Amino acid sequence: MQWVENALGRRVPAELDGRRLKPFKGAFQDQGGGVMAQRLVPLTTTPGRIDKVVRSWDDLWKRLSLRDGMTVSFHHHLRNGDFLVNETMRRLADLGLKNLVVAPSALFPVHDGLVDLIKSGAISHVEGSMNGQVGVACSKGLMKKAAVLRSHGGRYRAIQDGDLKIDLAVIAAPAADCFGNANGVLGKSAFGPIGIALADSLFADQVVVVTDNLIPFPCVPMSISGLNVDHVLTVDSIGDPTKIVSGTTKLTRSPTQLNIADLATRFVEAAGILREGFSFQGGAGGISLAFTQFLGERMAARGIKASFSVGGTTGILVDLMKRGLINYVTDGQSFDLAAVESLRDNPRHVEIDPFISYCQHARGCFAHMVDVAVLGATEIDLDFNVNVNTHSDGLLLHGIGGFADAAAGAGCTIITAPSFRKRIPILREKVTTVTAPGEVIDVVVTERGIAINPRRQDLLEKVKGRGLPLVTLPQLMDQIHALTGIPDAPRLGDRPVALIEWRDGSVIDVVRQVLD
Amino acid sequence: MQWVENALGRRVPAELDGRRLKPFKGAFQDQGGGVMAQRLVPLTTTPGRIDKVVRSWDDLWKRLSLRDGMTVSFHHHLRNGDFLVNETMRRLADLGLKNLVVAPSALFPVHDGLVDLIKSGAISHVEGSMNGQVGVACSKGLMKKAAVLRSHGGRYRAIQDGDLKIDLAVIAAPAADCFGNANGVLGKSAFGPIGIALADSLFADQVVVVTDNLIPFPCVPMSISGLNVDHVLTVDSIGDPTKIVSGTTKLTRSPTQLNIADLATRFVEAAGILREGFSFQGGAGGISLAFTQFLGERMAARGIKASFSVGGTTGILVDLMKRGLINYVTDGQSFDLAAVESLRDNPRHVEIDPFISYCQHARGCFAHMVDVAVLGATEIDLDFNVNVNTHSDGLLLHGIGGFADAAAGAGCTIITAPSFRKRIPILREKVTTVTAPGEVIDVVVTERGIAINPRRQDLLEKVKGRGLPLVTLPQLMDQIHALTGIPDAPRLGDRPVALIEWRDGSVIDVVRQVLD
Repeated sequence: MQWVENALGRRVPAELDGRRLKPFKGAFQDQGGGVMAQRLVPLTTTPGRIDKVVRSWDDLWKRLSLRDGMTVSFHHHLRNGDFLVNETMRRLADLGLKNLVVAPSALFPVHDGLVDLIKSGAISHVEGSMNGQVGVACSKGLMKKAAVLRSHGGRYRAIQDGDLKIDLAVIAAPAADCFGNANGVLGKSAFGPIGIALADSLFADQVVVVTDNLIPFPCVPMSISGLNVDHVLTVDSIGDPTKIVSGTTKLTRSPTQLNIADLATRFVEAAGILREGFSFQGGAGGISLAFTQFLGERMAARGIKASFSVGGTTGILVDLMKRGLINYVTDGQSFDLAAVESLRDNPRHVEIDPFISYCQHARGCFAHMVDVAVLGATEIDLDFNVNVNTHSDGLLLHGIGGFADAAAGAGCTIITAPSFRKRIPILREKVTTVTAPGEVIDVVVTERGIAINPRRQDLLEKVKGRGLPLVTLPQLMDQIHALTGIPDAPRLGDRPVALIEWRDGSVIDVVRQVLD
Repeated sequence: MQWVENALGRRVPAELDGRRLKPFKGAFQDQGGGVMAQRLVPLTTTPGRIDKVVRSWDDLWKRLSLRDGMTVSFHHHLRNGDFLVNETMRRLADLGLKNLVVAPSALFPVHDGLVDLIKSGAISHVEGSMNGQVGVACSKGLMKKAAVLRSHGGRYRAIQDGDLKIDLAVIAAPAADCFGNANGVLGKSAFGPIGIALADSLFADQVVVVTDNLIPFPCVPMSISGLNVDHVLTVDSIGDPTKIVSGTTKLTRSPTQLNIADLATRFVEAAGILREGFSFQGGAGGISLAFTQFLGERMAARGIKASFSVGGTTGILVDLMKRGLINYVTDGQSFDLAAVESLRDNPRHVEIDPFISYCQHARGCFAHMVDVAVLGATEIDLDFNVNVNTHSDGLLLHGIGGFADAAAGAGCTIITAPSFRKRIPILREKVTTVTAPGEVIDVVVTERGIAINPRRQDLLEKVKGRGLPLVTLPQLMDQIHALTGIPDAPRLGDRPVALIEWRDGSVIDVVRQVLD
């Protein structure tokens, strides 16, 4: 295998599984060009009313073109409550199909059963993010080909540009009509936005909406347009929406997490970011939720209103909107049921998709309109490179989500993390895997201090002398390593088991096989 | 010039202006296939906030690539109140550009000034519908090439499939933000839906939103996505929205029109179409408005609720929705300001676009979900072919609008028209121009009786013996001609000055030059 060094000094294969790879050149070095994926012209051939409903999987298979090696895509809005990925893949395996490519936006522990289908050869590999045992299986080299991980914006781009060709898109829908219009906000399985499935609906050769709630035409809102849908399969249940909750919906009681959130809030205020009409993106982790809460308190105290927020949504964010502290919540994914309800009922809660929020191959995306993004990490290194995918033992246990897109777009990208977890330090000389390059990371906030990327002298000037515990990353690392020691390097083989794509499709890093 | 006969026996050129033409083969004979228009991959090359605002036309021109012969597109939601088509084309002409192709969805009398630019050579021809003096100029042979008229759905299809390549799209927007998100419902120039510009925004090489109301990001609803917009030009006024009114918004007092509307309503009821959950499309003409009103009265009397309506919207339709008689009004174009207000404020009033409502090259479109469409005509012939484009003197004075799409899709298509206008009979042996073939027309209602297409024996069976004045078209024509006489044939030359495209892109008829 021929290896080349990318702009971050990471060694990546020149070619893998028959595909020529583009080594990462820098966050904004992509020169674009070229044309989008070819789309076939579909056709209404016959007059008369249209009804696309299919009442059983067997009937569905009869209407589809299936083959070994085909790529089947899913969206992950039901997160750990999804029923469809397992059921679809098991049924396709039962048909005797082999070497299928699973292309979900993300997998969760509920999908651990796919490991058996990987072992049996029904599934070749995954093109998508993995959380759980499928990631472990990938790390251990069980997949026939290297997995490909992309950010939400990167996945849209890959589908749009033809890098990820989908033969069959399976779209879980809490509400759909006989024409195929669908949304994520109505019915017993309502999970909120459904926009991650947009690219699949536009570009897949065959598109199936699966619903447990067939409603009269027209299904409004038409978040997925029936004009792009071939069949509507009705089932008893698409999933359990209570399991979309990511971690906690209650404010953390961890003093460390609260401390970090407080520091991040104080930094944002000191840096002058917290001003009338500003915008922000927060996540759904404990620190992010606390940050959102604290930010809201400062906004209320100072009479400041945010123009909008981007990203995954929780009840805490919704409360800020209800209190008039955020003008619009633009939402790509609901992290709790309060967010689902708000999206359904509040016209200021606006559904968006990864094209709108994150796509680099567009005339701008909303990530670029965000003043500050507060994101988590598994590791950070002295070059401010960030890892959100692997743990320090090398295991691939997390997806990218919107991380790379939000980090690249925001005016100020802040990584918040405890300085160590279970005695594993967050700071390392080199991260195990690079998800995003240091050039898009501006600030690292831990409970032991705030490190500002030297590239951002402007931020440093603004917050100097404002009582914040400023440190450098080397200082911080020495402090932490004095407590934790330097962890052993993971035992990794040479084989690349997964590619980490930057949002432009270049390979920013590879995940290597973890040896037993 | 080589001529061929199409499926309706109309002679159309095999090739025109260097383009090979497809003769019409039948309403549903299109076998589709092929690929959509190639779309270039755009790119966000730089980090940081995005601002696309340009404050003057001169600055705009500097940012665009302009050339002789380029195609410039517009949407017509401002109808006779539009300021932008004239201003843009005059300014492009002032730059010395020649042979420009104007590709509006429709032109109105307010655009009569374009005739001078046609005469001067700045404009070569029009690809779009024409109402007014530009149509007269076309009829008289003043354009260098043949104009091309398409239905709303046909225009979307042509752009999607690459038949109509747009170099520059100019989108008038009553509200837009610095990123290019835009809608038609906010601001002093609010005109309602803006979806006719959707195809232009998706497929044009250069996309400019022009607004007189720049609002803070994000502009919600984002009916036009800023991700598809290159520049946002601010101007003092994009138009006068009071002039979107088509004809009248008050109920007609004409006994003939009321009589026809009453007959159409009675027919719909007798045919069993008026049942719980049915759907309909009505237009904005006097008869259509009266029909909508009468239909509402029957629905209220019988406790029937429609599931949805499609098409252009008026206050009369909005009132039915407010009274709970229509579940959803899906709206592609507002015909009065009451409709604009309703679209802005009522979540059951849903904005749609010509892709959703009318596109034949999709996996179905909403027109197919409509039980009954009531449409107007300038002429009807004994084969039930309908003309909505030319008058009996041969002059091209009207656009197609959604006529062909609605007629092809609806379960029952009813043409309502007075039996003669200004002593010109509506019924002829052969229409001057065919806009839609008789195979998609089910019923003709005039004040002198109702004629059912023999193809629809099912409808005939249902309404027989229900007290309706049923006639045949030959009977009706003889009656009318006995009063009006048979009008002289228009004096037409051989030269085709305009093509009438069926929604699939085939040529259903040509308009010939009108000799003085």
